[in-house]
Amino acid sequence: MEVQFTSDITVKMIDSMADDVSIARAAWVSTKGERAEDEINTEKIGGLINYLMKHRHGTPFEHNAFTFLVKAPIFVFREWHRHRVAWSYNEVSGRYSVLPPLFYIPPKHRPLINAGTSARPKFEPGTAEQYQLVKTSLEANAYDAYDRYTTMLENGIGNEVARMVLPVNTFTAMYATANARSIMHFLSLRTEHDDAAYPSHPMWEIAQAAETMEEFFKGQFPITHEAFVKNGRVAP
Amino acid sequence: MEVQFTSDITVKMIDSMADDVSIARAAWVSTKGERAEDEINTEKIGGLINYLMKHRHGTPFEHNAFTFLVKAPIFVFREWHRHRVAWSYNEVSGRYSVLPPLFYIPPKHRPLINAGTSARPKFEPGTAEQYQLVKTSLEANAYDAYDRYTTMLENGIGNEVARMVLPVNTFTAMYATANARSIMHFLSLRTEHDDAAYPSHPMWEIAQAAETMEEFFKGQFPITHEAFVKNGRVAP
Amino acid sequence: MEVQFTSDITVKMIDSMADDVSIARAAWVSTKGERAEDEINTEKIGGLINYLMKHRHGTPFEHNAFTFLVKAPIFVFREWHRHRVAWSYNEVSGRYSVLPPLFYIPPKHRPLINAGTSARPKFEPGTAEQYQLVKTSLEANAYDAYDRYTTMLENGIGNEVARMVLPVNTFTAMYATANARSIMHFLSLRTEHDDAAYPSHPMWEIAQAAETMEEFFKGQFPITHEAFVKNGRVAP
Amino acid sequence: MEVQFTSDITVKMIDSMADDVSIARAAWVSTKGERAEDEINTEKIGGLINYLMKHRHGTPFEHNAFTFLVKAPIFVFREWHRHRVAWSYNEVSGRYSVLPPLFYIPPKHRPLINAGTSARPKFEPGTAEQYQLVKTSLEANAYDAYDRYTTMLENGIGNEVARMVLPVNTFTAMYATANARSIMHFLSLRTEHDDAAYPSHPMWEIAQAAETMEEFFKGQFPITHEAFVKNGRVAP
Repeated sequence: MEVQFTSDITVKMIDSMADDVSIARAAWVSTKGERAEDEINTEKIGGLINYLMKHRHGTPFEHNAFTFLVKAPIFVFREWHRHRVAWSYNEVSGRYSVLPPLFYIPPKHRPLINAGTSARPKFEPGTAEQYQLVKTSLEANAYDAYDRYTTMLENGIGNEVARMVLPVNTFTAMYATANARSIMHFLSLRTEHDDAAYPSHPMWEIAQAAETMEEFFKGQFPITHEAFVKNGRVAP
Repeated sequence: MEVQFTSDITVKMIDSMADDVSIARAAWVSTKGERAEDEINTEKIGGLINYLMKHRHGTPFEHNAFTFLVKAPIFVFREWHRHRVAWSYNEVSGRYSVLPPLFYIPPKHRPLINAGTSARPKFEPGTAEQYQLVKTSLEANAYDAYDRYTTMLENGIGNEVARMVLPVNTFTAMYATANARSIMHFLSLRTEHDDAAYPSHPMWEIAQAAETMEEFFKGQFPITHEAFVKNGRVAP
Repeated sequence: MEVQFTSDITVKMIDSMADDVSIARAAWVSTKGERAEDEINTEKIGGLINYLMKHRHGTPFEHNAFTFLVKAPIFVFREWHRHRVAWSYNEVSGRYSVLPPLFYIPPKHRPLINAGTSARPKFEPGTAEQYQLVKTSLEANAYDAYDRYTTMLENGIGNEVARMVLPVNTFTAMYATANARSIMHFLSLRTEHDDAAYPSHPMWEIAQAAETMEEFFKGQFPITHEAFVKNGRVAP
Repeated sequence: MEVQFTSDITVKMIDSMADDVSIARAAWVSTKGERAEDEINTEKIGGLINYLMKHRHGTPFEHNAFTFLVKAPIFVFREWHRHRVAWSYNEVSGRYSVLPPLFYIPPKHRPLINAGTSARPKFEPGTAEQYQLVKTSLEANAYDAYDRYTTMLENGIGNEVARMVLPVNTFTAMYATANARSIMHFLSLRTEHDDAAYPSHPMWEIAQAAETMEEFFKGQFPITHEAFVKNGRVAP
């Protein structure tokens, strides 16, 4: 049996719609009706978008969309799927398919030790021994679990029953679609930052995915992203 | 004062993302993982999409988006805005702007008479006299209301107070964004049809907008649209 | 024809579920599993709820519900219905019923003059003459519109066509249901306040409804309400 | 180490709001305004609710709420949390707490063999040997995983890292809140039935939870439940 391990949580942008101008256009319809494209210029957009962000006028940030293909372990998706509003998901199914033998192992630089409390975690690096313990535990656990999984499947047990042995670091994949408002809400909670309004100390693995997503978001909506950062990373 | 009238409810597609293939891709991730593009062919997609539609697997129909610019009277938007899930709206504001003197008048072919009951309306054409009554009533009403509106504005009354006189056939505009699943739900309720599962007899004006929207939807997702029609116009 | 006028926007609480303890219980399940009732005391709850509010842990505020019967003019409901997430509505229909001749007139103390800009309205009281103009305009407008409405109905025109003449200050009623999190979001935007994070200057009429709703909310969730106010009236 | 096993997926009703009358009241506001309580009688309600169900008038079914405490394995919650609209969740956290050593084992009568295809599963009972294999695999797997979990915790590894070894049959608990409309949608997909419109063959474990939930729902909304069953278990 060829069990594989990875530390690479990946987010790939599959598709996207609209840009910063769409936000200005949607906002201006409230005050000025349908706006001639040539009246729209980047400078005016910047001030307007910052105003909307600051004053929580959120709906203009919804006339757009991003689809991502995310590859990450189950425990990351468990947290991700709690984002319900304007998020759509389709994930690999452990009922309709046999899950491949791929498991997540934290990379060496992943902080392992909680130096805070359980209520307010503050993670710090572990020793080499601690990392080794985590690594060998996860590896042995994956081998054992996948071996049992395979044995059950070979003995005719249905996918959905056999997979009960698989650990939450089993790697999986999903398409996830959301609009800029929902993405900013996700980023405000799932990236590491100390902004005054709402400091955020998320789980390390989901933060890796969030950071990649933020790059795609920033690339497509640079003015909106700048206003988001300027206003303390609070979603409008 | 130059009051204007229109019978033209319009829907313009501003932007869109994704197509039928995106639905197959999202569905296949459940059973087959990430799919090589060259494995995807139209024939297989047709069967799959029909299967998803029939068995109410709705989420694959969410990884896409449409933005429309809709121009219609207030009473149409009142009904439209009751669609809450995965719909985003930005509309001309009667607080932040002075509403232009444009009002809706039903065209001659708009059925005027309810030959059913109030609970189960069944609309039929009116006589020429009845149409004339509707037309002259709406015209006079619009002139009177807009005259009062203007007078109040000229006397310093704020927009949001002065507009209280305006009738619900005042014309307005909005950007509306939704995904294919929400659009199909809208179409199932807001287009006229006698499909066995859920015959639908919507308000005539919203049906005009829905029909135009359906053309855009059909153009972008022809296979999905065909499956929607084939399965009794029930959204998955 | 007996046209009537009212300045009374009313909100009546029809039903409600749960209280402050439900919030603590839902939060504690994350960290301590199911909690014995006798371990829960008001003092601990206060600190916990304040912590949740401050750090935007919003979901514990969702395991509850309120149903209100709201009576207000159409233009208020137009704004209200833009609140989509975890709000449910059923309103009097102008298609399925004949709307009664009841119209909204602002009371004398309603600020009439916008001393700000259209983008940032700042309302101030009007003169006696200005109030008189508003009152007589709205009254004459209502009489004219309702007269046309009645005439069309008497001539066999369907409800949904005849009602197009009615102004947006026509009084209507709805049942509205929401949870505490959505209610706090509504209150943060629809009550007048100058809290640092997000000062809010809503339309006067919707603020009347919001204030009454806030009293009901405060009565049922006093600890949560206190934490909401303390944290700048920002919904978690 | 005292690892425990259970086959008991439980659903307990914690709180609830409203009953069948609330549905009639919300529907009648559309056509008849606010309804005197003494005009409402059970017989009329039955016909009305059946009409609403049949014609997909869904919003009257939303002015109510249920809170449940659910205890089930992680793989059940993974499926459950995909229900996003009008569902609220708070679950035991593997980041903020140490998860207790309790694991799910299917009971003897749980069908183990998929006699259908992966796309259309049709589960049948297994042999005694097959059940024994499942049971011993899950037991050994749980012991091994929990042992590694404990060892990592004892060596200072943070909860969120150590828990990566735990399998998806780890038992967990959540508060879940929804309204009748969302509950019916859940029941239509997550209970086993062969209704013509949409036969449903859900995962056995989630069906256990759904059946218990259905009893609570039926107890509180007997007329609505009867109409739901009569109309092919399709949510309005």
